[in-house]
Amino acid sequence: MLTNLEHLGLAVNDLEAATALYTSLLGIAPYKKEHVASEAVDTVFFQVGGSKIELLAGTSPDSAITKFLAKKPEGIHHVAFEVDDIRAEMQRLQEQGFVLLNEEPKRGADNKLVCFVHPKSAAGVLVELCQSIAD
Amino acid sequence: MLTNLEHLGLAVNDLEAATALYTSLLGIAPYKKEHVASEAVDTVFFQVGGSKIELLAGTSPDSAITKFLAKKPEGIHHVAFEVDDIRAEMQRLQEQGFVLLNEEPKRGADNKLVCFVHPKSAAGVLVELCQSIAD
Repeated sequence: MLTNLEHLGLAVNDLEAATALYTSLLGIAPYKKEHVASEAVDTVFFQVGGSKIELLAGTSPDSAITKFLAKKPEGIHHVAFEVDDIRAEMQRLQEQGFVLLNEEPKRGADNKLVCFVHPKSAAGVLVELCQSIAD
Repeated sequence: MLTNLEHLGLAVNDLEAATALYTSLLGIAPYKKEHVASEAVDTVFFQVGGSKIELLAGTSPDSAITKFLAKKPEGIHHVAFEVDDIRAEMQRLQEQGFVLLNEEPKRGADNKLVCFVHPKSAAGVLVELCQSIAD
Protein backbone atom coordinates (compact mmCIF):
# COMPACT_ATOMS: atom_id res chain seq x y z
CA MET A 1 0.00 0.00 0.00
CA LEU A 2 0.94 3.65 -0.42
CA THR A 3 1.60 5.07 3.03
CA ASN A 4 1.81 8.85 2.67
CA LEU A 5 1.40 11.66 0.16
CA GLU A 6 5.14 12.31 0.26
CA HIS A 7 5.26 15.29 -2.11
CA LEU A 8 3.59 17.16 -4.91
CA GLY A 9 5.88 18.08 -7.81
CA LEU A 10 5.16 21.39 -9.58
CA ALA A 11 6.73 22.24 -12.95
CA VAL A 12 7.68 25.92 -13.03
CA ASN A 13 9.16 28.22 -15.65
CA ASP A 14 11.16 30.45 -13.32
CA LEU A 15 12.43 28.69 -10.18
CA GLU A 16 13.40 31.88 -8.38
CA ALA A 17 10.02 33.54 -8.96
CA ALA A 18 8.11 30.38 -8.04
CA THR A 19 10.17 29.98 -4.86
CA ALA A 20 9.27 33.54 -3.81
CA LEU A 21 5.60 32.92 -4.70
CA TYR A 22 5.33 29.65 -2.76
CA THR A 23 7.19 31.13 0.22
CA SER A 24 4.45 33.78 0.34
CA LEU A 25 1.57 31.40 -0.37
CA LEU A 26 2.56 28.73 2.14
CA GLY A 27 3.93 31.18 4.71
CA ILE A 28 6.92 28.80 4.99
CA ALA A 29 10.54 29.13 3.78
CA PRO A 30 12.01 26.33 1.63
CA TYR A 31 14.30 23.92 3.47
CA LYS A 32 16.38 22.67 0.54
CA LYS A 33 17.53 23.42 -2.98
CA GLU A 34 18.93 20.47 -4.94
CA HIS A 35 20.19 19.93 -8.48
CA VAL A 36 19.35 16.43 -9.77
CA ALA A 37 21.80 15.86 -12.62
CA SER A 38 20.24 12.53 -13.71
CA GLU A 39 16.89 14.27 -14.34
CA ALA A 40 18.33 17.62 -15.48
CA VAL A 41 16.28 19.56 -12.96
CA ASP A 42 16.79 22.13 -10.24
CA THR A 43 14.45 21.56 -7.31
CA VAL A 44 13.31 23.54 -4.27
CA PHE A 45 11.51 21.81 -1.37
CA PHE A 46 9.02 23.12 1.19
CA GLN A 47 7.82 21.03 4.15
CA VAL A 48 4.08 21.39 4.80
CA GLY A 49 2.98 19.14 7.65
CA GLY A 50 3.80 15.56 6.69
CA SER A 51 4.15 16.33 2.95
CA LYS A 52 6.46 18.37 0.75
CA ILE A 53 5.99 20.73 -2.16
CA GLU A 54 8.75 20.27 -4.76
CA LEU A 55 9.25 23.02 -7.34
CA LEU A 56 10.94 21.70 -10.48
CA ALA A 57 12.66 23.64 -13.28
CA GLY A 58 14.38 21.94 -16.21
CA THR A 59 18.08 22.63 -16.80
CA SER A 60 18.35 21.16 -20.31
CA PRO A 61 16.08 20.72 -23.35
CA ASP A 62 16.07 16.95 -22.62
CA SER A 63 14.63 17.38 -19.13
CA ALA A 64 11.16 15.88 -18.64
CA ILE A 65 10.16 19.18 -17.03
CA THR A 66 11.34 21.26 -20.01
CA LYS A 67 9.39 18.94 -22.35
CA PHE A 68 6.29 19.12 -20.10
CA LEU A 69 6.40 22.94 -20.10
CA ALA A 70 6.81 23.04 -23.89
CA LYS A 71 3.35 21.46 -24.16
CA LYS A 72 1.51 22.63 -21.05
CA PRO A 73 1.34 25.67 -18.78
CA GLU A 74 3.13 25.45 -15.44
CA GLY A 75 1.32 23.54 -12.73
CA ILE A 76 1.24 20.12 -11.10
CA HIS A 77 3.62 17.65 -12.73
CA HIS A 78 3.41 14.59 -10.45
CA VAL A 79 2.15 13.24 -7.14
CA ALA A 80 4.54 11.14 -5.07
CA PHE A 81 3.48 8.54 -2.54
CA GLU A 82 5.77 6.97 0.02
CA VAL A 83 6.11 3.19 0.10
CA ASP A 84 7.99 0.95 2.50
CA ASP A 85 9.22 -1.52 -0.16
CA ILE A 86 9.33 -0.05 -3.66
CA ARG A 87 10.09 -3.32 -5.44
CA ALA A 88 7.17 -5.09 -3.75
CA GLU A 89 4.81 -2.21 -4.66
CA MET A 90 6.05 -2.14 -8.26
CA GLN A 91 5.32 -5.87 -8.53
CA ARG A 92 1.89 -5.49 -6.89
CA LEU A 93 0.91 -2.69 -9.29
CA GLN A 94 2.20 -4.50 -12.39
CA GLU A 95 0.18 -7.57 -11.41
CA GLN A 96 -2.90 -5.34 -11.21
CA GLY A 97 -2.30 -3.98 -14.71
CA PHE A 98 -0.70 -0.62 -13.95
CA VAL A 99 1.95 0.48 -16.46
CA LEU A 100 5.26 1.51 -14.90
CA LEU A 101 7.55 3.99 -16.64
CA ASN A 102 10.74 2.42 -15.27
CA GLU A 103 11.34 -1.28 -14.77
CA GLU A 104 13.87 -0.77 -11.99
CA PRO A 105 13.76 1.82 -9.18
CA LYS A 106 15.91 4.82 -10.00
CA ARG A 107 17.60 7.43 -7.84
CA GLY A 108 15.48 10.58 -7.44
CA ALA A 109 15.81 13.85 -5.56
CA ASP A 110 15.80 14.04 -1.77
CA ASN A 111 17.59 10.72 -1.23
CA LYS A 112 14.85 8.47 -2.63
CA LEU A 113 14.44 5.45 -4.86
CA VAL A 114 11.60 6.25 -7.26
CA CYS A 115 9.37 4.66 -9.89
CA PHE A 116 6.72 6.38 -12.01
CA VAL A 117 3.30 4.99 -12.94
CA HIS A 118 1.97 5.99 -16.38
CA PRO A 119 -0.76 8.68 -16.07
CA LYS A 120 -2.96 6.66 -18.44
CA SER A 121 -3.02 4.00 -15.71
CA ALA A 122 -4.02 6.45 -13.01
CA ALA A 123 -6.89 8.62 -14.33
CA GLY A 124 -4.57 11.26 -15.78
CA VAL A 125 -2.22 11.62 -12.80
CA LEU A 126 1.53 11.00 -13.08
CA VAL A 127 2.11 9.00 -9.89
CA GLU A 128 5.55 8.50 -8.36
CA LEU A 129 6.31 5.81 -5.80
CA CYS A 130 9.22 6.70 -3.55
CA GLN A 131 11.15 4.94 -0.84
CA SER A 132 13.65 6.70 1.39
CA ILE A 133 17.19 5.38 1.10
CA ALA A 134 18.65 4.47 4.48
CA ASP A 135 21.63 6.69 5.34
CA MET B 1 0.78 29.60 7.34
CA LEU B 2 -0.55 26.48 5.63
CA THR B 3 -0.14 23.58 8.04
CA ASN B 4 -0.77 20.39 6.05
CA LEU B 5 -1.45 19.10 2.55
CA GLU B 6 -4.99 18.15 3.59
CA HIS B 7 -6.13 16.63 0.30
CA LEU B 8 -5.67 16.40 -3.42
CA GLY B 9 -8.87 16.73 -5.45
CA LEU B 10 -9.07 14.68 -8.68
CA ALA B 11 -11.74 15.35 -11.32
CA VAL B 12 -12.98 12.04 -12.76
CA ASN B 13 -15.42 11.09 -15.49
CA ASP B 14 -16.71 7.87 -13.91
CA LEU B 15 -16.70 7.88 -10.11
CA GLU B 16 -17.29 4.14 -9.77
CA ALA B 17 -14.46 3.22 -12.14
CA ALA B 18 -12.08 5.76 -10.57
CA THR B 19 -12.91 4.47 -7.08
CA ALA B 20 -12.00 0.93 -8.15
CA LEU B 21 -8.82 2.20 -9.83
CA TYR B 22 -7.63 4.21 -6.82
CA THR B 23 -8.51 1.38 -4.42
CA SER B 24 -6.11 -0.80 -6.46
CA LEU B 25 -3.46 1.88 -6.91
CA LEU B 26 -3.33 3.01 -3.29
CA GLY B 27 -3.95 -0.45 -1.84
CA ILE B 28 -6.47 1.27 0.47
CA ALA B 29 -10.30 1.22 0.54
CA PRO B 30 -12.16 4.57 0.54
CA TYR B 31 -13.50 5.64 3.92
CA LYS B 32 -16.32 7.92 2.81
CA LYS B 33 -18.65 8.79 -0.05
CA GLU B 34 -20.36 12.18 0.17
CA HIS B 35 -22.69 14.18 -2.07
CA VAL B 36 -22.04 17.93 -1.81
CA ALA B 37 -25.22 19.55 -3.07
CA SER B 38 -23.86 23.10 -2.94
CA GLU B 39 -21.06 22.16 -5.39
CA ALA B 40 -23.10 19.60 -7.39
CA VAL B 41 -20.47 16.90 -6.90
CA ASP B 42 -20.27 13.34 -5.67
CA THR B 43 -17.04 12.69 -3.79
CA VAL B 44 -15.13 9.63 -2.57
CA PHE B 45 -12.32 9.98 -0.01
CA PHE B 46 -9.23 7.86 0.68
CA GLN B 47 -6.94 8.46 3.67
CA VAL B 48 -3.23 8.15 2.79
CA GLY B 49 -1.06 8.91 5.81
CA GLY B 50 -1.84 12.46 6.93
CA SER B 51 -3.49 13.45 3.62
CA LYS B 52 -6.57 12.48 1.64
CA ILE B 53 -7.30 11.77 -2.00
CA GLU B 54 -10.72 13.15 -3.00
CA LEU B 55 -12.29 11.86 -6.21
CA LEU B 56 -14.83 14.33 -7.63
CA ALA B 57 -17.53 13.76 -10.24
CA GLY B 58 -19.98 16.47 -11.30
CA THR B 59 -23.70 15.82 -10.87
CA SER B 60 -25.01 18.72 -13.00
CA PRO B 61 -23.86 20.71 -16.04
CA ASP B 62 -23.29 23.69 -13.70
CA SER B 63 -20.82 21.82 -11.51
CA ALA B 64 -17.27 23.22 -11.58
CA ILE B 65 -16.07 19.63 -12.11
CA THR B 66 -18.33 19.08 -15.12
CA LYS B 67 -17.10 22.37 -16.61
CA PHE B 68 -13.46 21.43 -15.90
CA LEU B 69 -13.87 18.05 -17.63
CA ALA B 70 -15.54 19.68 -20.64
CA LYS B 71 -12.24 21.50 -21.30
CA LYS B 72 -9.59 19.17 -19.90
CA PRO B 73 -8.91 15.46 -19.48
CA GLU B 74 -9.46 13.96 -16.05
CA GLY B 75 -6.69 14.57 -13.53
CA ILE B 76 -5.78 16.84 -10.66
CA HIS B 77 -8.36 19.57 -10.04
CA HIS B 78 -7.14 21.25 -6.84
CA VAL B 79 -4.73 21.01 -3.92
CA ALA B 80 -6.12 21.71 -0.45
CA PHE B 81 -4.06 22.93 2.47
CA GLU B 82 -5.22 22.95 6.06
CA VAL B 83 -5.19 26.21 7.98
CA ASP B 84 -5.98 26.94 11.61
CA ASP B 85 -7.79 30.23 10.99
CA ILE B 86 -9.18 30.53 7.45
CA ARG B 87 -10.23 34.19 7.76
CA ALA B 88 -6.78 35.20 8.99
CA GLU B 89 -5.08 33.28 6.13
CA MET B 90 -7.47 34.79 3.55
CA GLN B 91 -6.55 38.26 4.79
CA ARG B 92 -2.82 37.46 4.84
CA LEU B 93 -2.93 36.18 1.25
CA GLN B 94 -5.02 39.10 -0.04
CA GLU B 95 -2.54 41.52 1.51
CA GLN B 96 0.22 39.73 -0.38
CA GLY B 97 -1.62 40.09 -3.69
CA PHE B 98 -3.16 36.62 -4.09
CA VAL B 99 -6.57 36.60 -5.77
CA LEU B 100 -9.26 34.69 -3.86
CA LEU B 101 -12.21 33.10 -5.67
CA ASN B 102 -14.59 33.59 -2.76
CA GLU B 103 -14.68 36.59 -0.45
CA GLU B 104 -16.18 34.63 2.44
CA PRO B 105 -15.34 31.06 3.53
CA LYS B 106 -17.91 28.60 2.18
CA ARG B 107 -18.99 25.17 3.32
CA GLY B 108 -17.15 22.37 1.48
CA ALA B 109 -17.09 18.58 1.64
CA ASP B 110 -15.84 16.67 4.69
CA ASN B 111 -17.05 19.24 7.24
CA LYS B 112 -14.76 22.08 6.21
CA LEU B 113 -14.86 25.81 5.64
CA VAL B 114 -13.06 26.45 2.35
CA CYS B 115 -11.71 29.24 0.16
CA PHE B 116 -10.06 28.92 -3.25
CA VAL B 117 -7.05 30.89 -4.50
CA HIS B 118 -7.03 31.69 -8.22
CA PRO B 119 -4.59 29.42 -10.12
CA LYS B 120 -3.15 32.49 -11.88
CA SER B 121 -1.97 33.58 -8.43
CA ALA B 122 -0.33 30.23 -7.67
CA ALA B 123 1.74 29.15 -10.71
CA GLY B 124 -1.14 27.31 -12.35
CA VAL B 125 -2.38 25.42 -9.29
CA LEU B 126 -5.95 25.78 -7.98
CA VAL B 127 -5.26 26.03 -4.23
CA GLU B 128 -7.93 25.48 -1.60
CA LEU B 129 -7.57 26.61 1.99
CA CYS B 130 -9.63 24.54 4.41
CA GLN B 131 -10.37 24.68 8.09
CA SER B 132 -12.15 21.89 9.94
CA ILE B 133 -15.46 22.91 11.48
CA ALA B 134 -15.63 22.04 15.17
CA ASP B 135 -18.33 19.42 15.83
